[in-house]
Amino acid sequence: MTAHAPAGLFISFEGVDGAGKTTQVERLRDYFAQQGRRVVVTREPGGTGLGVRLRQMLLHGGDIAPRTEALLFAADRAQHVAEVIVPALDRGDIVITDRYLDSSLAYQAGGRELTVDDVRGLSMWATGGLLPQRTYLLDVDPQVSHRRLTHGEDRMESAGYDFQRRTREEFLNLARADAGRFLVVDASAGIETVWDTIRTDADALLGGVAASASAGISDDAQQTGECRP
Amino acid sequence: MTAHAPAGLFISFEGVDGAGKTTQVERLRDYFAQQGRRVVVTREPGGTGLGVRLRQMLLHGGDIAPRTEALLFAADRAQHVAEVIVPALDRGDIVITDRYLDSSLAYQAGGRELTVDDVRGLSMWATGGLLPQRTYLLDVDPQVSHRRLTHGEDRMESAGYDFQRRTREEFLNLARADAGRFLVVDASAGIETVWDTIRTDADALLGGVAASASAGISDDAQQTGECRP
Repeated sequence: MTAHAPAGLFISFEGVDGAGKTTQVERLRDYFAQQGRRVVVTREPGGTGLGVRLRQMLLHGGDIAPRTEALLFAADRAQHVAEVIVPALDRGDIVITDRYLDSSLAYQAGGRELTVDDVRGLSMWATGGLLPQRTYLLDVDPQVSHRRLTHGEDRMESAGYDFQRRTREEFLNLARADAGRFLVVDASAGIETVWDTIRTDADALLGGVAASASAGISDDAQQTGECRP
Repeated sequence: MTAHAPAGLFISFEGVDGAGKTTQVERLRDYFAQQGRRVVVTREPGGTGLGVRLRQMLLHGGDIAPRTEALLFAADRAQHVAEVIVPALDRGDIVITDRYLDSSLAYQAGGRELTVDDVRGLSMWATGGLLPQRTYLLDVDPQVSHRRLTHGEDRMESAGYDFQRRTREEFLNLARADAGRFLVVDASAGIETVWDTIRTDADALLGGVAASASAGISDDAQQTGECRP
């Protein structure tokens, strides 16, 4: 699993709930499929049978310690990569995942016990350093995404808003730190505008992949992805 | 959980199956209890409710990738430390565990994908760097322990013997590398002889703990236990 250059194309979508990921994932899947490409659409957490059981455990497992929780998320990701993502990339498929490791970093950041670096180190080890070639961050003000999710029926309480706002900021920090991988898309624009941006980028991406054997594992990721004493 | 010096005393027993750990764990528990000490006896894997479910998952979960497996063992250990071991040590109890991280190192060593350093890094992160003050390694030739387990009724097949022999060697390597923590006990001697050795050491250990506020987390462990990019 480790340290090989997959033949396919690996894309992730990130953003807070209600940013419109599902719609854009489906559009991109259909767009690639219309061009005769094989596409695997998947998600985290719960992209494998074992992952579904882990997700149940995380939701209903009682009092789970912060490190236990981070290790279970990492185990879900390790299995997802080994069982679904890498085999598909090895076949030359396009893999589109709804959430990947950046969600762990954004949502678990600023916790009391674990740092972003802790969670990143774990995820990079779990995945063997496999990063997407492109990550679309659908960026939106949490108040807007909340209205979408609730059809405007209630107002978000301020604690919830603070959490969503911090998560959004963390996503934007991650995008700034890895500008070559991320494309930040203003998700408050209409669906068609968002889709135009993604489609244009995806065309260029596919052209780039066709022109060169692209590797999903950066040298940097490999160096930093190990849990070593 | 991280980076504090527990008030209690933390002891682990290690060794291949059939080395006699259960008998000696019980003797040591009774010995400490007779002196009026509170003792918590526990085990890995499966020392918590969540750990039992993870163990089931590991045994019956189908095709689990090597990194997934290592992360699930680490999650079990993280929960065991957070839920059972650290609270007991904080109360000033003596904790005796039948297997701890050295078992992961010895049994998972030499696999095709993961190195001992990988597994150690993960375990040290999972535990916040918490190591036992004493580890009793009950060392025995696998042929002897096998005869004990089967009451001499069959002979171990050679593949099984090779595996057990490698595991034994790995335990001995770990003990050599951390001679201050390990006490290697010749478990081919009779139960009483083994017990005399352990009791004598435990007396000294308890005296040492009483005399000084002993810390279960070494500086070295802290420095090396983090998953950092």
